[in-house]
Amino acid sequence: MSSYHLSASKSIAMMKFLALCFFVMINIPIAEARIRHYKWELKYEYKSPDCYKKLVITINGRTPGPTILAQQNDTVIVEVKNSLLTANTAIHWHGIRQIGTPWFDGTEGFTQCPILPGDTFVYKFVVDRPGTYLYHAHYGMQREDGLFGSIRVALPDGESEPFAYNYDRSIILTDWYHKSTYEQAAGLSSVPFQWVGEPQSLLIQGKGRFDCSAANPPMKADVCNNTNPECSLYSTTVVPGKTYRLRISSLTALSALSFQIEGHNMTVVEADGHYVEPFVVKNLFIYSGETYSVLLYTDQDPARNYWVTTNIVSRNATATTPPGLAVLNYYPNHPRRSPPTIPPSGPMWNDVDSRFNQSVTIRARKGHVYSPPATSDRVIVLLNTQNQPNPHLLKATISQIMTSKLYKNNTNATTSDAIYRLQLNSTVDIVLQNANTMNPNNSETHPWHLHGHDFWVLGYGKGKFDPINDPKKYNLVDPIMKNTVPVHPFGWTAFRFKADNPGVWAFHCHIESHFFMGMGVAFEEGIERVGKLPSSIMGCGETKHLLKP
Amino acid sequence: MSSYHLSASKSIAMMKFLALCFFVMINIPIAEARIRHYKWELKYEYKSPDCYKKLVITINGRTPGPTILAQQNDTVIVEVKNSLLTANTAIHWHGIRQIGTPWFDGTEGFTQCPILPGDTFVYKFVVDRPGTYLYHAHYGMQREDGLFGSIRVALPDGESEPFAYNYDRSIILTDWYHKSTYEQAAGLSSVPFQWVGEPQSLLIQGKGRFDCSAANPPMKADVCNNTNPECSLYSTTVVPGKTYRLRISSLTALSALSFQIEGHNMTVVEADGHYVEPFVVKNLFIYSGETYSVLLYTDQDPARNYWVTTNIVSRNATATTPPGLAVLNYYPNHPRRSPPTIPPSGPMWNDVDSRFNQSVTIRARKGHVYSPPATSDRVIVLLNTQNQPNPHLLKATISQIMTSKLYKNNTNATTSDAIYRLQLNSTVDIVLQNANTMNPNNSETHPWHLHGHDFWVLGYGKGKFDPINDPKKYNLVDPIMKNTVPVHPFGWTAFRFKADNPGVWAFHCHIESHFFMGMGVAFEEGIERVGKLPSSIMGCGETKHLLKP
Repeated sequence: MSSYHLSASKSIAMMKFLALCFFVMINIPIAEARIRHYKWELKYEYKSPDCYKKLVITINGRTPGPTILAQQNDTVIVEVKNSLLTANTAIHWHGIRQIGTPWFDGTEGFTQCPILPGDTFVYKFVVDRPGTYLYHAHYGMQREDGLFGSIRVALPDGESEPFAYNYDRSIILTDWYHKSTYEQAAGLSSVPFQWVGEPQSLLIQGKGRFDCSAANPPMKADVCNNTNPECSLYSTTVVPGKTYRLRISSLTALSALSFQIEGHNMTVVEADGHYVEPFVVKNLFIYSGETYSVLLYTDQDPARNYWVTTNIVSRNATATTPPGLAVLNYYPNHPRRSPPTIPPSGPMWNDVDSRFNQSVTIRARKGHVYSPPATSDRVIVLLNTQNQPNPHLLKATISQIMTSKLYKNNTNATTSDAIYRLQLNSTVDIVLQNANTMNPNNSETHPWHLHGHDFWVLGYGKGKFDPINDPKKYNLVDPIMKNTVPVHPFGWTAFRFKADNPGVWAFHCHIESHFFMGMGVAFEEGIERVGKLPSSIMGCGETKHLLKP
Repeated sequence: MSSYHLSASKSIAMMKFLALCFFVMINIPIAEARIRHYKWELKYEYKSPDCYKKLVITINGRTPGPTILAQQNDTVIVEVKNSLLTANTAIHWHGIRQIGTPWFDGTEGFTQCPILPGDTFVYKFVVDRPGTYLYHAHYGMQREDGLFGSIRVALPDGESEPFAYNYDRSIILTDWYHKSTYEQAAGLSSVPFQWVGEPQSLLIQGKGRFDCSAANPPMKADVCNNTNPECSLYSTTVVPGKTYRLRISSLTALSALSFQIEGHNMTVVEADGHYVEPFVVKNLFIYSGETYSVLLYTDQDPARNYWVTTNIVSRNATATTPPGLAVLNYYPNHPRRSPPTIPPSGPMWNDVDSRFNQSVTIRARKGHVYSPPATSDRVIVLLNTQNQPNPHLLKATISQIMTSKLYKNNTNATTSDAIYRLQLNSTVDIVLQNANTMNPNNSETHPWHLHGHDFWVLGYGKGKFDPINDPKKYNLVDPIMKNTVPVHPFGWTAFRFKADNPGVWAFHCHIESHFFMGMGVAFEEGIERVGKLPSSIMGCGETKHLLKP
């Protein structure tokens, strides 16, 4: 489907969201919590995150933006001033459920009008659960311009995590393109279709390395310069013999990743803000929109530094995108001292089984299990496929027009302009069914992100979902709760959630270009229970007429 | 000054414009005129106007956009759909006075909120005078992305021009940059300041020629390709022995131009919609925002084609920007057949006297003189200068922070966030005083454009304006009326206008980067007489609170 269909869909969602109003005001639990106040200015600036100079969106001059630090039940206030010249924006608080404040979810077209250049928009919401979350632009493909950062919510004073650690670090993984998001989006909207292709580099906490000397045709030093200190590799210093909590998250535009630290194991303890029954990995597979905490024990030879690497899996980018590199710096070695080894290579890109196995290994931690409802009121099956609705696209060998259509009820649907109205407090099962891409022998991983809720991950399967037998195998004992979940190549993923958060919520593939092309739907629940809307979110687009004086 | 000051100024202007309302409705004279209805969609698309591929803004797939054809007193309706992804827009109807419809002047921040992505905004205005006008984006630096076109207003049926011609052609001249306007604007806003530099090419009616093979470093053929038919030179076919009215206009971002047709003279007959006492030129000097009609007699050897050329004057771009080329095709020669000659070079870039002389030569045509008021009620002197308000900019050798400050009343002003409240129906004199750039031995040409009015050009001078003696030399006999006028290097320009059009009107240097940096003011007159505002222009930015439900 085209983005225009989605726009129409979004407008309808937005109008429904507005058309309600003025009913019961939901109470927000803020008891004794603190206010965390941030003032941000968004600008286009020239930066060289991987040594190639291009325009990025900065927050107070930085990308990634500042990490939001808060404690459970604090109220976070972020004043966002848009200084992006002629471009609008909106910021989504990824993993924050926005209970009682659905209008501050920051999803342009779903929950708010965009923030216009020159305007300041104030987000105000409660972080009601401890854990690792994210924020990022949720408008067009702006996230890829560098507008993102971490949210770290600690437990209240006096409470402690079910695992011990000495230090805490946040690391965001991204893939990086040299074309602007305007150019990428124009290509996706073009006839013939122009696919964005593989990224030019991978960034670890905003730093990467593109080999300027290998560029063909060559680039001038004022465009690409490998000696620019702006693109020195990310280095994180550790003290030997300690335990580090690394909060690893991915906000890639396209890539599924593997993350590893040379010579070290990692113990996974948190996923999307929920405690995981600990398990040890050498490679952490992570999909766009996911967050994990791993424990790292600095128990290796302290006389040297170690490579931190990330590489693309699920798509074959071995010829196009080098691994992302960073340095684990053992104090007192110099932070810029290269490890004496060749950076270890990660797992094979097409090793689907290992990734599938990690997914099924992730369970709720004992003593921290939230039991799911035993049954659901409704099942929605979404087929993830790519087709060719436009005959002009037939020539494009990698045309990837995404549609997520109703698998059973609505087999004729070819677009995703679907709004699902969910009964408030009903239990809903979603089954994501993967299929092939344009190439019949190929299937990709799609990470799906649900706004406003966490869900119980009931199961993963290979091949076609069997609606009679597969539900019998659902894990109802200790399913992990998440907000983002992958559907593996040619496989299926099932999850359950309570539609208990009045509002309109996006549910979409977190791959930026897939969402841009229409791979997303809206869930609407209990909007008659939403309180009076703040006027700041209104007054744009198709909804403007509601405000006519 | 920074763009933020101007933004604040614009917001105040906008608020004032809104704060009035609901008084006398101005009557629009529409008697028996027709409706001219246009539906436009704006998109980012890849185009190669000078063989280099980049994103441009198209109207219905084209840049320049379609020419609006109308007759005097027609009503033009343009439905503008913004499909620019995350960018807003607004379109100004340059030279159309918008009598009774100041809200449709299309000047973002002055007369309307920007048009949001996905929205359709309907402009509706009367073209009350015959002549040659323009339209273009008036938001950020978007005009330079290719969002512009011509407006040609003919006399009513049965009336005729005071000169005869067989055919009518519109030709827009522009300069062209390979960097996006976002990149240019980010550079202008950077510390240290990054000047936009000279353009990469000059376009004649949207076509130019950048020499891909001379690029250093070399460019790939999918980025720059001189065999791309999209960048074949503009060729206009003429029949020997006829008279052509060429409507030549300039919408350059930076450059002052000379325009010439090999082996042909041109007779200037119209300027900015007003008849000119005819005079003959070999080189037509033209500044951004100006329009001229010239008569071309196709009286040369019809066995060949002739070069049409344009080159930069006032700035030394000889080493950086090649002349723009097009072909005057004498039928029946092939339109793509190159003339047998080397394209003739234009005048020297620093020949100020010739340009000054053309300016003073332009007078109203006998029998078509509108006499100016003999005296004025108010004189405003604006000093055009460039300074260094920011110490970080001291290192930038071509830093050009523009300010237009009050020359007499307000010598301490360093920014242009000025709104001048003019008494309705008063007569106002403006004196533009030029000064040096950052380089004390250099001075540039600034073309100033007034919205909502035509003005009488009273005089041009060299050196410092003498407020006692120079006004005695004003031409009150046959001054041409214009909407855009240059102030020459180290010189001054004086003009007079009646503040008889209720509204808020921009007055600014038409050089895109200068206006972006703050070289502009607002005139406010009789806003209590403005009728009820259309709701479509409202609901943005600082004015949003006025609409709170």
